[in-house]
Amino acid sequence: MRRNAAAHSVPAPAYITRKIPVYELLNEEELARLEDHADWILSEIGIEIRGDAVALELFREAGVSVDGERLRFDCGHARALCASAPRTYTMHSRNPARSIVFGDDNLILGPAYGSPFVTDLEGGRRYGTMNDFENFIKLTYMTPWLHHQSGTVCEPVDVAVNKRHLDMVYAHLRYSDKPFMGSVTAPQRAEDSLAMARIVFGEDFMQKHMVIQGNINVNSPLVYDDTMTGALRTYAAANQGNVISPFILGGAMAPVTQPASIAQAHAEAMVGIALTQLVRRGAPVVYGSFLTTMDLKSGAPTFGTPESSLATLAISQLCRRLGLPFRCGGHLTASKIADGQAMQESVNNMNPAIMSGANFIFQAAGWLEGGLTIGYEKFVMDSDNCGAVERMLGGLTIDDNELAADAYREAGVGTNFLGVAHTLHNFRTANYRAALADTSSFEQWSEDGSADMQQRAFKRWNKMLAEYQPPPIDPAIDEALLDFIARKKASLKDAWY
Amino acid sequence: MRRNAAAHSVPAPAYITRKIPVYELLNEEELARLEDHADWILSEIGIEIRGDAVALELFREAGVSVDGERLRFDCGHARALCASAPRTYTMHSRNPARSIVFGDDNLILGPAYGSPFVTDLEGGRRYGTMNDFENFIKLTYMTPWLHHQSGTVCEPVDVAVNKRHLDMVYAHLRYSDKPFMGSVTAPQRAEDSLAMARIVFGEDFMQKHMVIQGNINVNSPLVYDDTMTGALRTYAAANQGNVISPFILGGAMAPVTQPASIAQAHAEAMVGIALTQLVRRGAPVVYGSFLTTMDLKSGAPTFGTPESSLATLAISQLCRRLGLPFRCGGHLTASKIADGQAMQESVNNMNPAIMSGANFIFQAAGWLEGGLTIGYEKFVMDSDNCGAVERMLGGLTIDDNELAADAYREAGVGTNFLGVAHTLHNFRTANYRAALADTSSFEQWSEDGSADMQQRAFKRWNKMLAEYQPPPIDPAIDEALLDFIARKKASLKDAWY
Repeated sequence: MRRNAAAHSVPAPAYITRKIPVYELLNEEELARLEDHADWILSEIGIEIRGDAVALELFREAGVSVDGERLRFDCGHARALCASAPRTYTMHSRNPARSIVFGDDNLILGPAYGSPFVTDLEGGRRYGTMNDFENFIKLTYMTPWLHHQSGTVCEPVDVAVNKRHLDMVYAHLRYSDKPFMGSVTAPQRAEDSLAMARIVFGEDFMQKHMVIQGNINVNSPLVYDDTMTGALRTYAAANQGNVISPFILGGAMAPVTQPASIAQAHAEAMVGIALTQLVRRGAPVVYGSFLTTMDLKSGAPTFGTPESSLATLAISQLCRRLGLPFRCGGHLTASKIADGQAMQESVNNMNPAIMSGANFIFQAAGWLEGGLTIGYEKFVMDSDNCGAVERMLGGLTIDDNELAADAYREAGVGTNFLGVAHTLHNFRTANYRAALADTSSFEQWSEDGSADMQQRAFKRWNKMLAEYQPPPIDPAIDEALLDFIARKKASLKDAWY
Repeated sequence: MRRNAAAHSVPAPAYITRKIPVYELLNEEELARLEDHADWILSEIGIEIRGDAVALELFREAGVSVDGERLRFDCGHARALCASAPRTYTMHSRNPARSIVFGDDNLILGPAYGSPFVTDLEGGRRYGTMNDFENFIKLTYMTPWLHHQSGTVCEPVDVAVNKRHLDMVYAHLRYSDKPFMGSVTAPQRAEDSLAMARIVFGEDFMQKHMVIQGNINVNSPLVYDDTMTGALRTYAAANQGNVISPFILGGAMAPVTQPASIAQAHAEAMVGIALTQLVRRGAPVVYGSFLTTMDLKSGAPTFGTPESSLATLAISQLCRRLGLPFRCGGHLTASKIADGQAMQESVNNMNPAIMSGANFIFQAAGWLEGGLTIGYEKFVMDSDNCGAVERMLGGLTIDDNELAADAYREAGVGTNFLGVAHTLHNFRTANYRAALADTSSFEQWSEDGSADMQQRAFKRWNKMLAEYQPPPIDPAIDEALLDFIARKKASLKDAWY
């Protein structure tokens, strides 16, 4: 193992440990009915894997009915194939203090993934570049409430499509020391991501330990394409992670009613998870869900809606019954800017994810415009709420100090507690303090320029980038990474698809 | 009874019926410890009722230890005195279709209460007037997601302090037909509120039926003043309602640790509820909580914080164990404008209230600046989320239509569900549609002027006010109300305190 041996100090927990109960929306009978319906979908309608003969053959060998590219599963079979997936596992980071654990009562937060556009108050909305990509990697690294770097935080459109994954993986490894996702846009790019991880972590280490992940979306309804299954198989074969997320807008990629969407998402997730296990038994995997609604007048996706909240809560229960780590949620919005709509929708989308017992929430910072854009101001505004989530999941401790009998003895009635010994002893750690919430008087706020939250956020992310210091890296490893990239790039003509 | 006999049509349910489980944060042992601590506070520290000899005498007669103005309760005594309060009861409106039921699985939403200032995008922040008051009554009446008019939606500072309650109660009765709160700023003003209600509902009817409420805040820590107990006794004696809410900023009006604040709030609420029952056994009452945090650097109140969320969830459990209707939450924020901060904090404050099983949430629309201001744009932005809350509490129905087997048979795999019969049959009722959420493309949104949510909200409330139509009222009743007000006003010199 060639990891940087000297772990440097980490100011925040590497991940959140949940101390409050999960919320159970549905009862046993309702959950069983949803599971039965998922089984019905997989046995009667089936699911297709398109263009991937290897995957089809794996399912055929496992006893699944394969008719052309259509798979049909006996009742309970998809579930049984998921059984070898680990319930909990560690994802190692190049800084061991940043390693994270999926599953159990743990929650891991990460920033947005996949936007072609970026926006900020000064520059407006434009295509993302490698510079933006690095900026978001740096901001994520600096944010104590984010534990994972996510993957394609924005598309760096100034680099050729067939080469940008090299620069992106390098940025993850060089400008941060938190865990991250590799490329999934082609099996070869997933292989390159693995190769670069091996330079840092060593091949032997990666045979037994997970250090990288692929983010796999289903082409809902009921289709996996070969790009996704190819990337999935690449990561699973290397004993590395996958996050399998059906991507459903109810009414388009699924029926318009939530119970149908929920059962379908469950069916689709199980098939992807099963494939990871057929490729390599015990390969680490996360059961994901991206299920939202649409405006049924315009067909536009909608986020943070009550219907999507209910669906998330129900799917979390189905996942828990499989015993797998659960990914869902995030600070999602259809708004184009970081205004009231953006925060109303984002918090509404995050809350059920938190209550549901989610283990992994990326898309937790920066998401705008249905995912088409990542915003700098939105990023730091969302991050504030990630800190609040950490405090919330810490729950209450009912003990003598917290009950503060002495404070009452000292203060009595009708006075105030500001100056009592108990307050002085506890105030530093008592409350989470959001960086961007303005709590000053109207007069003070007016004097300070009547800035809204976006304007304060603009200052904050600029200050953060100005203060950024990269984590240390072994120069030999850095050189080896740069050498790998240079050779790879030299071997390929630029392609823009 | 002189109520307007012909109830006119009501487009929305008069209140929400919760169909999803409540969230239980703490376990039995933790809850018992908080109850024990509340008992300890009431027995060892005690609580004061200041300047109200009648209230003190009622407690003395009930066997409570009274030492000057200090009450001390044996363990369990305060709780026992609350036992006669009804678990559930109807609050009648002059339009019977608008009558609401407190308790059980019901949730009643109402707008902000108590702001001296109002603000809107065009006029900026200024003192509220009677015109503003009427505007917010009208907007509340027009909002299907608000079921209760609240009370002092803003302070109409253009009317003398000793007369404004008359105009406020008139506005409630004339410009809406939803339930409302009367004056609590002096016992005589509470009597006037009752007298005006009697003109509409009749004296006999009000002996047996609740039609009006007082909003009673505790002078935390551990003090009730005679203004509050005087108003409380006035409403209770008339068999009308009270909402008893300790008002606690942790660190100032209670210790800085949440468990202490929670136990104190419980102790304070029980004493006020006990007083209603000593005045009139069976008088309707709501157990309220207004418990939030402060910025421990500046001393400013903070809202929607994780600590306040945890406290709300815990207090709701203590209230449920008493069996009483629970009031908490609302769309609260410290922000001066309806920006991202306002929505982030508001939704974060509303969510635990919803999950906790709250029965009554006023302060659900318009609240800004720690309650100092009610905002027109904020009002309609919050109202959108009240509609989402109603849909959320409706939960999921797992039945054949919702599972949509035929939709899969029709659509198959890899296609979309937009045109299938099931979608066409269900899309009209499938999703809640927020009025102010912009879900259009970036291009369309830019072409439409790049408006943020506040700007869209400005248009919306102006349009609503332009379209407002008052509910019908019996002209004889209207005349009697106006006559009562004219005589009252003529009998008093203007007072501004």
